[in-house]
Amino acid sequence: MLNYTTDELKAILNQAEAEYASYVKQELKLDMSRGKPSSAQLDLSNDLFDIKYDKTKSKVDYRNYGILEGIPEIRGLFADLLGVTADEIIALDGTSLAIMYGSVQRAMQFGVYGGSKPWGEQGKIKFLCPVPGYDRHFAITEKFGIEMINVPMTMYGPDMDMVEKLVSTDASIKGIWCVPKYSNPDGITYSPQTVKRFASLRPAADDFRIFWDNAYFAHEVYGYNDELVNILQECKKAGNEDMVYMFASTSKITFPGAGVSCVVMSKNNVAFNKKIMGIEMIGPNKLNQWRHYEYFKTADNVYKHMAKHAEILKPKFDAVTNTLDELKAQGFISYNKPRGGYFVSVFTPKGTAKEVIRLCNEAGVVFTPAGSTYPYKNDPDDSNIRLAPSLPPVDELEKAIAVFAVAVKIAAVKQALGM
Amino acid sequence: MLNYTTDELKAILNQAEAEYASYVKQELKLDMSRGKPSSAQLDLSNDLFDIKYDKTKSKVDYRNYGILEGIPEIRGLFADLLGVTADEIIALDGTSLAIMYGSVQRAMQFGVYGGSKPWGEQGKIKFLCPVPGYDRHFAITEKFGIEMINVPMTMYGPDMDMVEKLVSTDASIKGIWCVPKYSNPDGITYSPQTVKRFASLRPAADDFRIFWDNAYFAHEVYGYNDELVNILQECKKAGNEDMVYMFASTSKITFPGAGVSCVVMSKNNVAFNKKIMGIEMIGPNKLNQWRHYEYFKTADNVYKHMAKHAEILKPKFDAVTNTLDELKAQGFISYNKPRGGYFVSVFTPKGTAKEVIRLCNEAGVVFTPAGSTYPYKNDPDDSNIRLAPSLPPVDELEKAIAVFAVAVKIAAVKQALGM
Repeated sequence: MLNYTTDELKAILNQAEAEYASYVKQELKLDMSRGKPSSAQLDLSNDLFDIKYDKTKSKVDYRNYGILEGIPEIRGLFADLLGVTADEIIALDGTSLAIMYGSVQRAMQFGVYGGSKPWGEQGKIKFLCPVPGYDRHFAITEKFGIEMINVPMTMYGPDMDMVEKLVSTDASIKGIWCVPKYSNPDGITYSPQTVKRFASLRPAADDFRIFWDNAYFAHEVYGYNDELVNILQECKKAGNEDMVYMFASTSKITFPGAGVSCVVMSKNNVAFNKKIMGIEMIGPNKLNQWRHYEYFKTADNVYKHMAKHAEILKPKFDAVTNTLDELKAQGFISYNKPRGGYFVSVFTPKGTAKEVIRLCNEAGVVFTPAGSTYPYKNDPDDSNIRLAPSLPPVDELEKAIAVFAVAVKIAAVKQALGM
Repeated sequence: MLNYTTDELKAILNQAEAEYASYVKQELKLDMSRGKPSSAQLDLSNDLFDIKYDKTKSKVDYRNYGILEGIPEIRGLFADLLGVTADEIIALDGTSLAIMYGSVQRAMQFGVYGGSKPWGEQGKIKFLCPVPGYDRHFAITEKFGIEMINVPMTMYGPDMDMVEKLVSTDASIKGIWCVPKYSNPDGITYSPQTVKRFASLRPAADDFRIFWDNAYFAHEVYGYNDELVNILQECKKAGNEDMVYMFASTSKITFPGAGVSCVVMSKNNVAFNKKIMGIEMIGPNKLNQWRHYEYFKTADNVYKHMAKHAEILKPKFDAVTNTLDELKAQGFISYNKPRGGYFVSVFTPKGTAKEVIRLCNEAGVVFTPAGSTYPYKNDPDDSNIRLAPSLPPVDELEKAIAVFAVAVKIAAVKQALGM
């Protein structure tokens, strides 16, 4: 509820509508919908193109067939970055989404390690979906006909009381989608307590998996790194090491789609999945893996590289959050100011998100459609909007977020006034 | 049946056993089991490493997200090579096997364009498998529980009378695996008549697909190119354009696993599959695709490149086929002398293939296990053996094939003598 008198609201509305009209006149064409790195960020990795493979540089010839699980060098690098061992890693090609899809697909068709039968042969099954979340995750589970249950996010991660209750009592719940660090879209890093509660889950299902999409494991924006407790290690302590699949990639470190992605899992899970993967494919692009390894060599160099990304991203996040901070102080929105990742997630007053997006679009500013951050594209509160600040230049972002602020005020005040 | 007198057979056996004993003494370590290019072949493409991407070279920045179906340049190149249009092609990463697996997996889970329901929801389903064939194909269908029916290969391709009869009467038959050019392992190119009969099939099933693995479309060894009639064009003429999926890759043109692979299909099939693929993945490695395009630019340059491969492969194929020709003339084996591809397939007298392989292994020469070229690894005649001449140097091949010849004689004569 907005804490203004009716007269104040009317004055705000008048001013906002005047501003809005002036933006409409400018015939803007701005896009804040796409979580893509900017050209300047991509330029940071151009030296990758200079790296030539030479067969004398590796024990076996990486130009030829073989090594389904990825070359040891890149698995070692991911192991260092993610706090596991190389034999807990399968490293593949550029898109971690394909590994996630593959993991769900194999579970549907062939089951998971330790499970009694394939997910697809168990009638109605379900996934928990912390919301707001990543639309591509939800698209996978929706495609497989897996029922999705919304779980609210808190400042510490998903509502763990709800997760624990549902997972421990309902054997048809087979998984949960998580983006545990700088979450998409809220930018929240799960607290140590949350991660430990995840690791200690006692699922009713014998084939439950946590899909831990560690997409932003090294993607801080403000020069310090949120600590995310290592879930695989916690799961081991809790006797649950087979319960988690962790995913990561270099898509937003080097080049989207042309990087290296990986899955981290227990050795049992690795063996189980590799056996099926050996039927699915010959193996990854080892030359691209080698080039990535040769370019970075150490985890420390990856972090140094990410600091350069952060330098480019910080003024963009600032441009957006400066305005959002004002809007929040004025009571029009709530939001978490992210310390990393690729998105900013805003909650407008309930029932206004679609109207805000509509107003923005009519003024030439494109945002991700309202609802996109929820399963079935259905935000029951019509409140959440995802902003992607990475791609446009700062001056465009400043203009886009100004339009957004005015649109929020118009929609919120009209609603408060019953207009 | 061997056309020798008993005394002649005994003499052959004595000599063969003496020779065999001398090979055993040499403690050989030779491997003819692996259809891998040699280091010299891989060196042919080393200049690929010199090609740097520069964002000014393409309309959109290939370093960033987007273009699920692959970049237009590489799709255009494949289109020229395969006699189709670029919009009939989806170009992905290095391994065409992954596209084949994906095509079966999508059909199992979600059906195919024009089909009434997913393959996986139709009870027992079947695939036709021309034999001998490619073990990796059979592994995919076996994994999905699809029953495999052997169809004998002839010099003109699969027995089309049998294919037509089965496909037109049994709606549970959903597909057939084909390697239509320089077939794996026989090296047979399907005749124009065979291709046309394929294109004119009238399947009982509304969701039947031909899996046309055009793995060796430009892989001649003897300097002239077997003509393979274009099945997609023939299917169009027969009103059957949605019935075929064609697969190809640069694995044996540039680098296995680090090349570009593609699927060719009707526009309806492209649209159907792309819709699901958009959920499966972000997209292929466009930079690798671009590098491949930039390296070749034209189909003609690909053919010139393949002629260099052939120069390296020809003496290797000769080393093997010279001995096999003798063995064939002596009545010990039958085989097709391939004009391209990666394999030579030998038929020893029925019931002797396992024994031949065993003798070779004991003399330190490894061949692909007998049975590998049949579904369920079961060669009902115990007769077929696949030889892979590409990897070892010529002197090793000469020695390996000499051991093979002696082993064939021993096994065949012993069988003929009832020993």
